[in-house]
Amino acid sequence: MLGAMLYAPGDVRVEERADPTIERATDAVIRLAATCVCGTDLWSYRGIQAVDGPTPIGHEYVGVVEEVGSDVRDIKPGQFVVGSFFASDNTCEICRSGYQTSCPHREPVGALGAQAQRLRVPLADGTLVATPEPPPADLVPSLLAASDVLGTGWFGAVAAQAGPGRTVAVVGDGAVGLLGVLAAKQLGADRIIAMSRHASRQKLAIEYGATDIVTERGDDGVAMVKELTDGLGAHSVIEAVGTHESMMQAIRATRPGGHVGYVGVAHGVELSGTELFFSHVHLHGGPAPVRRFLPEMIDLIVTRTIDPGRVFDLTLPLDEAAEGYRAMDERRAIKTLLRP
Amino acid sequence: MLGAMLYAPGDVRVEERADPTIERATDAVIRLAATCVCGTDLWSYRGIQAVDGPTPIGHEYVGVVEEVGSDVRDIKPGQFVVGSFFASDNTCEICRSGYQTSCPHREPVGALGAQAQRLRVPLADGTLVATPEPPPADLVPSLLAASDVLGTGWFGAVAAQAGPGRTVAVVGDGAVGLLGVLAAKQLGADRIIAMSRHASRQKLAIEYGATDIVTERGDDGVAMVKELTDGLGAHSVIEAVGTHESMMQAIRATRPGGHVGYVGVAHGVELSGTELFFSHVHLHGGPAPVRRFLPEMIDLIVTRTIDPGRVFDLTLPLDEAAEGYRAMDERRAIKTLLRP
Repeated sequence: MLGAMLYAPGDVRVEERADPTIERATDAVIRLAATCVCGTDLWSYRGIQAVDGPTPIGHEYVGVVEEVGSDVRDIKPGQFVVGSFFASDNTCEICRSGYQTSCPHREPVGALGAQAQRLRVPLADGTLVATPEPPPADLVPSLLAASDVLGTGWFGAVAAQAGPGRTVAVVGDGAVGLLGVLAAKQLGADRIIAMSRHASRQKLAIEYGATDIVTERGDDGVAMVKELTDGLGAHSVIEAVGTHESMMQAIRATRPGGHVGYVGVAHGVELSGTELFFSHVHLHGGPAPVRRFLPEMIDLIVTRTIDPGRVFDLTLPLDEAAEGYRAMDERRAIKTLLRP
Repeated sequence: MLGAMLYAPGDVRVEERADPTIERATDAVIRLAATCVCGTDLWSYRGIQAVDGPTPIGHEYVGVVEEVGSDVRDIKPGQFVVGSFFASDNTCEICRSGYQTSCPHREPVGALGAQAQRLRVPLADGTLVATPEPPPADLVPSLLAASDVLGTGWFGAVAAQAGPGRTVAVVGDGAVGLLGVLAAKQLGADRIIAMSRHASRQKLAIEYGATDIVTERGDDGVAMVKELTDGLGAHSVIEAVGTHESMMQAIRATRPGGHVGYVGVAHGVELSGTELFFSHVHLHGGPAPVRRFLPEMIDLIVTRTIDPGRVFDLTLPLDEAAEGYRAMDERRAIKTLLRP
């Protein structure tokens, strides 16, 4: 089969790889309907995260189950399934509390390489959720979004306690930030401030439910959020970038007693305990437990209540993955969908 | 009147100071029934926090109202009142949300010096809570504890979401940590792990409701908490010290999805965003909004449901404040009560 390999920063190649097979009784093998490039993939593509020789890449996936191991009970061949970027058993105490990405038995799907034609998914019953029926083709991008980027924005909004009566600010206008706007809207937030300086992203943010746009960044952006909130700051701030600057922007834009939901994978973030102490904010985040939200997200997608797939503004065949990475790296595309 | 002054690290003197008067229409002047030395005072007593020439000190106080300004409506002369260490209006949006210590109009009472015979309290209606009737003498220490150290332990327990079905660990066996144990018990926690290596503090922790004692510190302490919790960590951890080591101990002892309530004033704490991200904990804390909890705490004290005053294991006349500081600095006393 064909699969993408990251050889070195800036060097993605699609090449022939061995077809995956059932290795453990809890595995499934799926034939991918779609996969995509994640902002997280860019950390290693840009060399900010070390790249250690050629490695399979990609962790967002939807597709049709081809084969399951002998211990798989719920997932069946022929089903259309949405996956999560960490495999998890979904039965342990941590999973049952909604933190499947910290499951003691978790396995990173990225190491198996979902930017490919086929994928072995460990712990299939815990990791995959089947759609009620095979979806029409136009819903596939939205279902693919659910497997990470929507789930991550959703977790950011939940961690920030977005909801009725609350003003939500979103730091970051990548796909996660934009879908954080969508999630905040679904959760009933009164007002949603998108922080973005790109016209096309502002436009999508507004279509997803943003009521205000702030183009300033850093402490200037914080001052604008305060100006929009009686000098107090937002009740809820979603951090969807992962740099030190964006994290401080999020904490400082939050009112005392408010909630920061941070889902940008932290790179170079160092928090001063003293500033955090006197900020009085609630801080929660981490790798989004997408599995927690998959049933609800899938339902909203198949009933056409939400359309998260619109974050894909570039679609390429899998063998042009390298161009998909370049377009995102250069911010020509918000997010690239790959057709295996 | 007599009042304590901090001249320099290690140098506390009780000397004659001008009697406080009503300066603003929202002030009250109270005659103190009792005051005390706080762990927070030790940061400057030890020179860890800079001392800038002689300054009044002390921020925990109960007493009888002598005089009120013309705009004070609820607080009346003759009432016995319990104060908070930050004055707050208790009417603004931040106060109403329960974060009085971040009130935009807050004033630190410590700058006025509560280790004294009399005290001017700004924003009296917002800051003070009167007891239903003048309390008997034996309840005064517990009411004094409510003005900071109990309120701080209580906020730590609330921030850590201590409650039914949850295992709570408490980092720090000072008065705040011990009262964090008491608060966790009141909030209905199933199991309370006190981290302490001092026999007398372990004893009080157990009397306050601790079910387990862990004597190890740092990562060894974390390993013990995990051993007691099926390898997962506690649901709730109260951090009641404020050093980098204690904060990391608290975060690492918390299970994914669990809650850290940190109330030790942060000194030298630097949090790695990456470790925090993958810890999956909720982090909340800061200067305790004691005012939020005062009505409930006072009720529990006057009905003799709780006895937080037992953390005072040394009582001295105000003019021996210097010895009260020394005893706490050398850990000969958990907490010193001063009789003005």
